[in-house]
Amino acid sequence: NRRYVIASIPGDGIGKEVIPVGQEAADAVADRHGFSIEWRPLDWSCERYDRTGRMMPEDGIDQVKECDSIYLGAVGWPGVPDHVSLWGLLIPLRRDLDLYANVRPVRLLEGVTSPLAGRGKADIDFVVVRENVEGEYSEIGGRLYRGTEHEAAVQETVFTRRGVDRILDYAFELAKTRPRKHVTSATKSNGIVHTMPFWDERFEAAKQRHPGVGTAQFHIDILTANFVLHPDWFDVVVGSNLFGDILSDLGPACAGSIGIAPSANLNPSRALPSMFEPVHGSAPDIAGKGVANPIAAVWTAAMMLDFLGEPEAAKTLEKAMEAVLTDPAARTRDLGGTADTKACGQAILKAI
Amino acid sequence: NRRYVIASIPGDGIGKEVIPVGQEAADAVADRHGFSIEWRPLDWSCERYDRTGRMMPEDGIDQVKECDSIYLGAVGWPGVPDHVSLWGLLIPLRRDLDLYANVRPVRLLEGVTSPLAGRGKADIDFVVVRENVEGEYSEIGGRLYRGTEHEAAVQETVFTRRGVDRILDYAFELAKTRPRKHVTSATKSNGIVHTMPFWDERFEAAKQRHPGVGTAQFHIDILTANFVLHPDWFDVVVGSNLFGDILSDLGPACAGSIGIAPSANLNPSRALPSMFEPVHGSAPDIAGKGVANPIAAVWTAAMMLDFLGEPEAAKTLEKAMEAVLTDPAARTRDLGGTADTKACGQAILKAI
Ligand SMILES: CC(C)[C@H](C(=O)O)[C@@H](O)C(=O)O
Ligand SMILES: CC(C)[C@H](C(=O)O)[C@@H](O)C(=O)O
Repeated sequence: NRRYVIASIPGDGIGKEVIPVGQEAADAVADRHGFSIEWRPLDWSCERYDRTGRMMPEDGIDQVKECDSIYLGAVGWPGVPDHVSLWGLLIPLRRDLDLYANVRPVRLLEGVTSPLAGRGKADIDFVVVRENVEGEYSEIGGRLYRGTEHEAAVQETVFTRRGVDRILDYAFELAKTRPRKHVTSATKSNGIVHTMPFWDERFEAAKQRHPGVGTAQFHIDILTANFVLHPDWFDVVVGSNLFGDILSDLGPACAGSIGIAPSANLNPSRALPSMFEPVHGSAPDIAGKGVANPIAAVWTAAMMLDFLGEPEAAKTLEKAMEAVLTDPAARTRDLGGTADTKACGQAILKAI
Repeated sequence: NRRYVIASIPGDGIGKEVIPVGQEAADAVADRHGFSIEWRPLDWSCERYDRTGRMMPEDGIDQVKECDSIYLGAVGWPGVPDHVSLWGLLIPLRRDLDLYANVRPVRLLEGVTSPLAGRGKADIDFVVVRENVEGEYSEIGGRLYRGTEHEAAVQETVFTRRGVDRILDYAFELAKTRPRKHVTSATKSNGIVHTMPFWDERFEAAKQRHPGVGTAQFHIDILTANFVLHPDWFDVVVGSNLFGDILSDLGPACAGSIGIAPSANLNPSRALPSMFEPVHGSAPDIAGKGVANPIAAVWTAAMMLDFLGEPEAAKTLEKAMEAVLTDPAARTRDLGGTADTKACGQAILKAI
């Protein structure tokens, strides 16, 4: 009797509306595929910060370490500065659990319209693999002459060989499981002259470790251009923390909506639980209205089930979600449909 | 009798094919508008590096300091590493002449097709203003434990108040000359926690200095998405060295072609000559074939004439270029036309 314990952190804003839909959908496929999920609800959020002065309890990381995985909605709310909300919850989860692989599939789904002219399903189907714990997102740095005209801010970017090699290896291994078996590396070694040439060297070394995988390399500037001009060129795209962040918003935009993009923050060693979160944020503008699109949360749940070792259940969930997207009466308004969050969720349950 | 002395550096690859077209076109409008240009040809390039071991002579910067401006084709050639070609020519020109404002107009022109569905001329008309001498492009940094498994690379990003304020001021002043009077700031203060919050503070301060200009601010990830989803939102977009670099390739891609995008590297104080270069590179794949698109070089020449104080001549040149783009027989193949570089250049001369 397979049973998974999953920490559920709806977080802020629409996170609280879409996570319940994802849970219900996951429970439904679990039922169909002969396993069960014990959800451990956690109220970690900006609301909790307002109440207690902390986004999560001091032993928060220890609490989630006991779970099989973490299902997170969205973090951030107006009035709570990002360095509090994000660096008090999202970033520590990524770092303290060593979730070094941020995996973000980009697929143009039936029922969703790409802003790119003449592009169909076959043209946009790739995965952005983002280094998730080092690089440009660094707490090393500070200010000089604060508040004076001589003020300066410095920020250290740090890439380690272990850190770069393991994310490149993850990207190559992922490529091997895909029909096209191709990895594109995002670089900027012509401008960022210390860290990026190092990244390129490690990419060269990774190629040697993974024969049989096709490769390409672009500077980040032209790479963003090529996402728009030639999305069909890409299969697995690997980038640093910052470049991966950029590409995994731009990619979903090219595929029609950031509102449906899922992501997995993985610790591929499985020594610690991995975390799964939609790419979208807490969306204060539409939060509380019941109109948020739950598709990203559902797709994210599918990625989680797949990683937990339930690939069949994941497939069922993805298929249900894709079926629902083709029906305008079941799609939410951001996708030109008429459904609200609940109705879209009901349609998914029905499709399961 | 107005006369301008312009250093002409065709550089590498297609730079050598498009710069002559730009010069001829500039001479033609100069003639019509009652001034003249003395071109000072300089062979600074990867070829020169192969011959002499240097991209430019040791007194290169002093040589160009005597000119009114610099007209540059493209820098870089396979076999010569970027740290030699770019950091031996392009970057020192930008830095030693304090060309802190990199200005890159993005406009969807008649005759050019946008990859974005349903977008026309009215939807894409903005300018990317890029900080050009500090920030992420830094020589500060290096390696630890080189060549071992403990290897790490570090790179320091440095923003100064003077550096940030002056580029923001440039962006706001530019916005004031445009009908929409709006500035969008590219940030990433939720992830890059030392330099980017500083950038945001300076943007707040700049708003106060420039009342009457509308503003917006986006994190770079969602900003790239919005270039694709809502290009009509943007008027002047200001970003750091790296973010500006990315946005000024993505923007032209959305406007149909990087092959036609111009750029100005400005020292707005005019104490030193400014430099003008197409956004495109040396394009080794098509170099020497006579098929390169000279439109970027011509548009770049127009920006140069405008900055030199010849706005009427600049307008004539831009109009000629735009007229030529509407004629498939005068457009180059990358734009679906049939012309080669020469034929396109002749058409521009005729239109002038
Ligand atoms: C060639 C490279 C160093 C350069 C840059 O990144 O500045 C180029 O991409 C540009 O945009 O002018
Ligand atoms: C909210 C922010 C810190 C975060 C990031 O940049 O990592 C987000 O953009 C993401 O992509 O998950």
